[in-house]
Amino acid sequence: MIADKMVDFVNNSSAIRAMFEEGKRLAAIYGAENVYDFSLGNPNVPAPFEVEKAIKDILLEEDSTYIHGYMSNSGYEDVRGVVASSLNKRFGTTFTEKNIIMTVGAAGGLNVILKTLLNPEEEVIVFAPYFGEYRSYVGNYNGKLVEISPNTETFQPNLPEFEEKITKKTKAVIVNTPNNPTGVVYSEDTIKKLSAILEKKQQEFGTDIYLISDEPYRELVYNGVEVPYLTKYYNNTIVGYSFSKSLSLPGERIGYLVIPDKVADSKEVLAAANVATRILGFVNAPSLLQRVVAKCINAKCNVEAYNKNRELLYTSLVSYGYQCIKPEGAFYLFVKSPVEEEKIFCEAAKKHNILIVGGSSFGCPGYVRIAYCVGYDTIVKALPGFKALIKEF
Amino acid sequence: MIADKMVDFVNNSSAIRAMFEEGKRLAAIYGAENVYDFSLGNPNVPAPFEVEKAIKDILLEEDSTYIHGYMSNSGYEDVRGVVASSLNKRFGTTFTEKNIIMTVGAAGGLNVILKTLLNPEEEVIVFAPYFGEYRSYVGNYNGKLVEISPNTETFQPNLPEFEEKITKKTKAVIVNTPNNPTGVVYSEDTIKKLSAILEKKQQEFGTDIYLISDEPYRELVYNGVEVPYLTKYYNNTIVGYSFSKSLSLPGERIGYLVIPDKVADSKEVLAAANVATRILGFVNAPSLLQRVVAKCINAKCNVEAYNKNRELLYTSLVSYGYQCIKPEGAFYLFVKSPVEEEKIFCEAAKKHNILIVGGSSFGCPGYVRIAYCVGYDTIVKALPGFKALIKEF
Repeated sequence: MIADKMVDFVNNSSAIRAMFEEGKRLAAIYGAENVYDFSLGNPNVPAPFEVEKAIKDILLEEDSTYIHGYMSNSGYEDVRGVVASSLNKRFGTTFTEKNIIMTVGAAGGLNVILKTLLNPEEEVIVFAPYFGEYRSYVGNYNGKLVEISPNTETFQPNLPEFEEKITKKTKAVIVNTPNNPTGVVYSEDTIKKLSAILEKKQQEFGTDIYLISDEPYRELVYNGVEVPYLTKYYNNTIVGYSFSKSLSLPGERIGYLVIPDKVADSKEVLAAANVATRILGFVNAPSLLQRVVAKCINAKCNVEAYNKNRELLYTSLVSYGYQCIKPEGAFYLFVKSPVEEEKIFCEAAKKHNILIVGGSSFGCPGYVRIAYCVGYDTIVKALPGFKALIKEF
Repeated sequence: MIADKMVDFVNNSSAIRAMFEEGKRLAAIYGAENVYDFSLGNPNVPAPFEVEKAIKDILLEEDSTYIHGYMSNSGYEDVRGVVASSLNKRFGTTFTEKNIIMTVGAAGGLNVILKTLLNPEEEVIVFAPYFGEYRSYVGNYNGKLVEISPNTETFQPNLPEFEEKITKKTKAVIVNTPNNPTGVVYSEDTIKKLSAILEKKQQEFGTDIYLISDEPYRELVYNGVEVPYLTKYYNNTIVGYSFSKSLSLPGERIGYLVIPDKVADSKEVLAAANVATRILGFVNAPSLLQRVVAKCINAKCNVEAYNKNRELLYTSLVSYGYQCIKPEGAFYLFVKSPVEEEKIFCEAAKKHNILIVGGSSFGCPGYVRIAYCVGYDTIVKALPGFKALIKEF
């Protein structure tokens, strides 16, 4: 018998992943080129050439037992130093290698920091729409997820409701900007107001409330939009980063946590996060890939390809009559379902071999997420389907 | 403030890892060549040449988005197929890719299966001496670790006590053979008796008791010793494997779980383990390394180098008067401390620049673990220290 907690998980297994499997099934029937899978955030842009070069150089230059061996649970010191320096140069911060913990992707990093911080029943606030896995991550440590309802005008956080829902039990707040699933970048004005609310509530309750910034999409922004670096606005900020999207390495599970000295009890938080990395079974971030990202810290994937996709898909869908905010970052469109029950819309889309994910997976029913990290051709070929689809409603 | 549960962890942070850091500190003072660090199971034997070749071939032959991209949470189907076929060929089993879940090392695999199976307060039995991290892994899911005291004559499991301590709440039993820290291989006779006890107790209580075989040292055996494949002796067996030691890739975090069809509720267990991989934040085992191990499934590291170390260290220590069972596998000697309080012995060893780990970390005080996965020269140079050391007691 599996654990009671897992029964529901198995029954309601992630809609996103189920769709991924559905895509494979349809591809087997109709041919992969005739299935338009917009369901998963799996980058179609290859890793930049620097990645392959880095791997080859490392194999040539460094010893096998070093490349593939254990290191401190937090990661290679030199790699962490490279990450810290790069952040300092880009954002004017003053981190050292001591502030960086290399992680098994951002998902690994989030689990490490939640294990580090959360007591059972403590609350973690998220802003709908949000990445649905946050619910599981918080549940892993018996925390309580508190949802703030969406502001569907702008998809910036709903700050009045946020202020109301902070309690003495609020231990952390997770933000994700550029946002999955909306592509919205939280503005500097939003961040300042959000920080001010947190400061006020910390004072009011005499507690520490940690702001966890989940940033896998930081580098994926269009037309020079700035994404504020949150540690500069609020002292109790911890950053979770992933190279999954910036270097197109999602399968490699490589990212990092930033735990600044200014964070409350930062020494204890760093020590506990180091232990959490080990006892959760990650042990350390994959070793070769740690060394690779250090060599590729300034490399960039072809963001322009995503931008081209964004322009085509957004312009076309809006011209067909779909309602959608234009994303400034990430590689998702969050489109209003033409029918209230979005599941009906997703099912209808399947008949055009179009796979998309319902907004309910992100705490925001009545919408669908379209991941445009696919070939440009896929979008071109899927457009007639999208056009026909909206006419059915 | 960090989570209450983490406070003790931070205070008692793993003796093994603390020693690793201590080794780095001493090396900075005395030079790495004059510090004899026997504290960590970090293979000193390089990965076999097939690993580097595989990496280069994969970069040449396969697309970046495939090598580094997402796949099903359980891993690439073809990789899982290669693992299943290899096991079938070696052990006469009948696994398919459906029975294999690629994991972030054996530590990741153990966490996945414990998350899958354990309800709070359910019991997991381990045989002392055991890998101390099991306590944390079981604690992650609020399970209760039940220790069986050691049989210090043979370091085979103490089966009479085992039979007594199985209760209605026993959900799993973890065995680790070849064993860390003793190097003992559980005999076929032991396995048969242990299986018979489990069958009897399952009947008696009307429960399923899962036997989890943690096998990172399977390939590290000496003089042709056979390590029984446990799925053949007991239906409810789940295997956790790692390539950390067999291919000298501990930093890469690559391994797998085997969940046979014969396991009770195997479909649910497989589905839940797949979900657990995702929600614990592993998402999937590192992608490039998955493809590498498939190409290196028959490769072997230089086990003879460990054997040479074993012979020198064992023979010398026994000749100096140390008491120790001769290990048949893994790369550890488990030596009786010449003084009851083993900490005193470990501290005295440090004065000879020798780093070893106390048996208390393995639930077996009064002993010390000496990891001989080090250079032959390190052993040669450390021997005078060991000789002088025992005379101090």
